[in-house]
Amino acid sequence: MPDTDRTAVGASSSPSSDEAARLGALHGVRVVDLTQFEAGTSCTETLAWLGAEVIKVEEPTKGEQGRHASTDKPGVDSHYFMLLNANKRSVTANLKSDGGRALLRALIEKSDVFVENFAPGAIERLGFAYDAAREINPRIIYAQVKGFAPDGPYGKFLAFDMIAQATGGAMSITGERDGRPLKPGPTIGDTGAGLHCAIGILAALYQRQFTGRGQRIEVAMQEAVINYGRVSYASQALWSKPAPRNGNQSILGTNAPSEAYQCKGGGPNDYCYIYTSRATSQHWDRLLKIIGREELIGDPRFAAAEARYQNRDDVDRMLSNWTRQHDKRTVMQTLGEAGVPAGAVFDTQELSTDPHLRRRGAFVTVKHPVRGDFTMPGWPVRMSESKVPIVAAPLLGAHNREIYGGLLGLTPEQEMALRDAKAI
Amino acid sequence: MPDTDRTAVGASSSPSSDEAARLGALHGVRVVDLTQFEAGTSCTETLAWLGAEVIKVEEPTKGEQGRHASTDKPGVDSHYFMLLNANKRSVTANLKSDGGRALLRALIEKSDVFVENFAPGAIERLGFAYDAAREINPRIIYAQVKGFAPDGPYGKFLAFDMIAQATGGAMSITGERDGRPLKPGPTIGDTGAGLHCAIGILAALYQRQFTGRGQRIEVAMQEAVINYGRVSYASQALWSKPAPRNGNQSILGTNAPSEAYQCKGGGPNDYCYIYTSRATSQHWDRLLKIIGREELIGDPRFAAAEARYQNRDDVDRMLSNWTRQHDKRTVMQTLGEAGVPAGAVFDTQELSTDPHLRRRGAFVTVKHPVRGDFTMPGWPVRMSESKVPIVAAPLLGAHNREIYGGLLGLTPEQEMALRDAKAI
Repeated sequence: MPDTDRTAVGASSSPSSDEAARLGALHGVRVVDLTQFEAGTSCTETLAWLGAEVIKVEEPTKGEQGRHASTDKPGVDSHYFMLLNANKRSVTANLKSDGGRALLRALIEKSDVFVENFAPGAIERLGFAYDAAREINPRIIYAQVKGFAPDGPYGKFLAFDMIAQATGGAMSITGERDGRPLKPGPTIGDTGAGLHCAIGILAALYQRQFTGRGQRIEVAMQEAVINYGRVSYASQALWSKPAPRNGNQSILGTNAPSEAYQCKGGGPNDYCYIYTSRATSQHWDRLLKIIGREELIGDPRFAAAEARYQNRDDVDRMLSNWTRQHDKRTVMQTLGEAGVPAGAVFDTQELSTDPHLRRRGAFVTVKHPVRGDFTMPGWPVRMSESKVPIVAAPLLGAHNREIYGGLLGLTPEQEMALRDAKAI
Repeated sequence: MPDTDRTAVGASSSPSSDEAARLGALHGVRVVDLTQFEAGTSCTETLAWLGAEVIKVEEPTKGEQGRHASTDKPGVDSHYFMLLNANKRSVTANLKSDGGRALLRALIEKSDVFVENFAPGAIERLGFAYDAAREINPRIIYAQVKGFAPDGPYGKFLAFDMIAQATGGAMSITGERDGRPLKPGPTIGDTGAGLHCAIGILAALYQRQFTGRGQRIEVAMQEAVINYGRVSYASQALWSKPAPRNGNQSILGTNAPSEAYQCKGGGPNDYCYIYTSRATSQHWDRLLKIIGREELIGDPRFAAAEARYQNRDDVDRMLSNWTRQHDKRTVMQTLGEAGVPAGAVFDTQELSTDPHLRRRGAFVTVKHPVRGDFTMPGWPVRMSESKVPIVAAPLLGAHNREIYGGLLGLTPEQEMALRDAKAI
């Protein structure tokens, strides 16, 4: 779709600013979405939340694999799928049939972006390698997410989030000091790679207004994980050895306090993280006042950052004695108001029911045609001119008529014939 | 700077495709960079790696705080700073002086993007709130990264990476099953937020070609962290309780194998993650062949995903017995080639010295004017039309002459007067 479809926006006959914001920053950008599971779907969901029209092309009988991953009700789309495919449209196409491939070709012709994260070599075997897509549409921005770089020793290997977290260094720097490597809970191998891919696509969309050409974008999940661990290479440079696991310490590991302290309550997440900067004693002095130990301000055992770190066991004991007397919210509130960096360890339930986060749209409740109300995290970036409402993930093939009839101009009879041929 | 500065690219007199790629996707985009530490600097570094001209504006006597954070040599820029400020230019401006503020106004007037992540309220007190910046330049895209949403209960609180990881739910889902909450090593509170901010800026740059207007972008680190934990909300929906810590299991936690298994060697990272999909028994059957237990293919104790999970202790024992006989690279290579998802736990040293990752540019060696050669992670997104060479972070004020003389047209005498007035 040519960019010029959008030139009306901002002109005198344009939609109002509110209406333009509702349409979103990427209004007019069409994405052919062949993604599955999370690394790819998180990328195209991001584009959808910025206003792109994302057309998810799925295998006709079961749909994308994520629909069935860890579902509690066979035949009903999983929560996992719903979390990663909001604001998209779904069409079916059997890419092993001539009819299905013809539909994909037609979609590529009319789109700006193509994204896939099949197993290595799969999209090429289906006949939609980069060169083929570019021949159909030289303006296409063609993006792929794989576990590993295709030209490297692991180029043909399968990958999931945890494989990327292991091979990208995240597990080597997560865990207790003398413990085994641990996988971070957040899926930085999957969503982390998807967001990198979105950055590449957005930059290429910007560039295309000057060059008129699309381009190829590749993200290896392993390499995206390395980027999130960037700061650990300062530790390696500093100590001339691999960055270690460091418990809850900051990654450079020479700060005290820099720990999650247990608070009143005794639940698994009744903790509050407390940190004071090394740069000055300002945070530390404020902290001492709050916990009623003003007499220690200026005490040489704690006055300088190095001394606090040397005496970190004393620091931890002193703080724990105080935090155990208060619940985590009180600890956070009291310290935060006093200008000491502190953060309660919130769990998913506390976050998703937080009235402020709900009001802000950090969590939204969407209406799903089968499951009904479903509460999920929204899109975290607030933009004054792009505020796309969040709607539930589509049922399989829900937009066949709209896309095949509307966009591609197929008659109902042609659509029926494709259905009979099991092409859609 | 108007976009039209770039229209030559792609025309017949344009630079070659190679030259255009070297300039990058964001060539012609100018960024006024008031960021510090990591959450902001990772955003502007990303923009620089995509070809934007990033002008880092720093306090004249010491520069941005990250220059001195955890440095091993007083007076020499820290590795931490070098990792987060490559490809930028540095100018000095004392924003508490009239002269310094005038320079910042002039830079905003000539730029496309403004980014800051000072403590809450600081930029407003300096006189550069969004409304002020927009008045100077209505095309400016004005982006802010803070720990928490400014309109919420924690809007005035300070934040660092670990505070965002605690309050964004990452710590509640990281750690051993019966253990305390642990901080993921990767800095998803900082770099994770910075990348979200980059996405917002890129989308706004795209949108601006149609609207002619800039806009305001806000990212709360807490909310960015929530987005990386998106899938944990499927666990909550499935089990109607907060997503738990789950050791090394996949986040939905009903898979076996889904674990880091100890390998030969005995080092802290001599482990290999092995995962088999629940969807079919394909990975599992392949795995049994590799470990010489073909007789178990089809065995009802392991044939279905549910059965494998029920008997996960047996699964773990069986696999450990095999992995302990081989080093982690052999385990990964053997399983990967057989089509079983597997990933060795690599540490920072193994990654940064990996010949393939070096060749690919996942790690690069830059020449720093004081420290000499420095090896650091590059930018992980490969783009066929944007391949900006990575250069070392600038010394403080290294580009005063170039920017103040060249871009703003100050004479050497004017610059000297500003220096005398301690404005730069």
